[in-house]
Amino acid sequence: MQPRRLSILGVGLLGGSIGLASKSVSSDCRVVGYGHRAESLKQAMEVGAIDEMATDPTVAAKGADLVILCTPVGAFSDILRQISPVLHPGAIITDVGSTKRSVVEAAAKQLPASVHFVGSHPMAGSEKRGVEFARADLFKGALCILTPTAKTNPSTTKQLKEFWQQLGMRLTEMSPEDHDRLVADISHLPHAVAAALVAMQSDPALKLAGRGFLDATRIASGDGGLWRDILLDNRDNIRAGVERLQQTLASLLEQLDRKDAEGLRQWLDAAAAKRENWARQKLQELNPE
Amino acid sequence: MQPRRLSILGVGLLGGSIGLASKSVSSDCRVVGYGHRAESLKQAMEVGAIDEMATDPTVAAKGADLVILCTPVGAFSDILRQISPVLHPGAIITDVGSTKRSVVEAAAKQLPASVHFVGSHPMAGSEKRGVEFARADLFKGALCILTPTAKTNPSTTKQLKEFWQQLGMRLTEMSPEDHDRLVADISHLPHAVAAALVAMQSDPALKLAGRGFLDATRIASGDGGLWRDILLDNRDNIRAGVERLQQTLASLLEQLDRKDAEGLRQWLDAAAAKRENWARQKLQELNPE
Repeated sequence: MQPRRLSILGVGLLGGSIGLASKSVSSDCRVVGYGHRAESLKQAMEVGAIDEMATDPTVAAKGADLVILCTPVGAFSDILRQISPVLHPGAIITDVGSTKRSVVEAAAKQLPASVHFVGSHPMAGSEKRGVEFARADLFKGALCILTPTAKTNPSTTKQLKEFWQQLGMRLTEMSPEDHDRLVADISHLPHAVAAALVAMQSDPALKLAGRGFLDATRIASGDGGLWRDILLDNRDNIRAGVERLQQTLASLLEQLDRKDAEGLRQWLDAAAAKRENWARQKLQELNPE
Repeated sequence: MQPRRLSILGVGLLGGSIGLASKSVSSDCRVVGYGHRAESLKQAMEVGAIDEMATDPTVAAKGADLVILCTPVGAFSDILRQISPVLHPGAIITDVGSTKRSVVEAAAKQLPASVHFVGSHPMAGSEKRGVEFARADLFKGALCILTPTAKTNPSTTKQLKEFWQQLGMRLTEMSPEDHDRLVADISHLPHAVAAALVAMQSDPALKLAGRGFLDATRIASGDGGLWRDILLDNRDNIRAGVERLQQTLASLLEQLDRKDAEGLRQWLDAAAAKRENWARQKLQELNPE
């Protein structure tokens, strides 16, 4: 699909990058951005991420053939309720949120039958915030998860797939439930842990920290408002993840108490090998050349 | 101090980098390397990290005015016992281990009164292993912790300080006990957590992981044998760290259960700000220009 009028609700790093990337693949695509801060919208206009700006989501969504929600996930339900009456029949609505159950449920409840919703999670971004860090190539090689349900029109899923593919993404599909459970493990839990590792440090300890700690905690520099919404929304899966992490650490402490040098070495080597195998494949995907 | 004959026991990433760095600051310094694998020693000769090689630590340590233990920490006690009879009177002995209580104790027990030991922990390195990754500038801007005790000759500490400073390091001093406690928090615990975060992942979850997970777990690719020794040696402090991390995560889960959006936002913002302030200073130290 090639949207003629693309509405981006929330023009930060992700929304701005979608605007830049869409305009770079099609000169025909007119992008209208919504944000509650006129200043950010002006900046988005200046960097060429959007063509029109609106501080009212209904103005930005009206007449669009593709609407993408790019605000923090906590605002999705309210925005869907607001834009619902003005949506063009046949319009496709999606989002870029890091959780999927709640937005899929809200869309089913709030959107008219005349429009089509599928949840998207483009797994790109960084700990940076704001449209000033937006890049047309942010999505290149990264994975986008679509979460269609039994009620989703397959043609909508197909069109959205094409849209993200044009932006350079690899696509996969799963249920909103599987998404939230799996992404809790590899993204939301690591974020909570990184923040906890920073929060627990004393000043004398932090003075000694080096490059390892810098990398291990980079994600903890992410936007607090964005992550608050994600952690609250996915708290059941995050709780389950914390419990599994604690069990894993408890096993490690038992090994240390037993001075089980051989078992410990095997466990550490296995973790290192598992990460290296995965990282090699991941880096190939992200940097295909 | 400017060693004339420098003995490096264990020529991997750190030992090799010490050889390269020492030879780059002094053409007078003759470096002899010990390792149990002749192949690694040959490689160390080829990259210019050492001038002579020995597969017997007593041969490598004999006649040296500075001896640096660079093997995994679990081998320190045995090596100190072996080299003890051949050490040159007045020689300075140090190590680069990530734990300090055990090596300081072993040195006090095993070394003759005619030589001087101070523990060092140059906080440089990477998850890479082997002399092929050795670099003369590995230590530039990084912190080196010395752990003198009440029995240490202050002149020895001063000379060792000068040695590490010549390699580009910033210096600090603390007791072996403080070292092991603080470094557990900012290095050993994060390592254990990163390995646990990798170990607990299912294959379907790992397929979805991206750049954030890549950085957060980079340290888990470190050498299993090296880290086994560190975790075993510092297990009391690591246990205390795991318990504090679990308390921090338990508080987070309570906030999620209470849906305390404001408290959660404050906690996440505080962690992000704490990390950003620290990271800014750390990057300035590591990249002074």
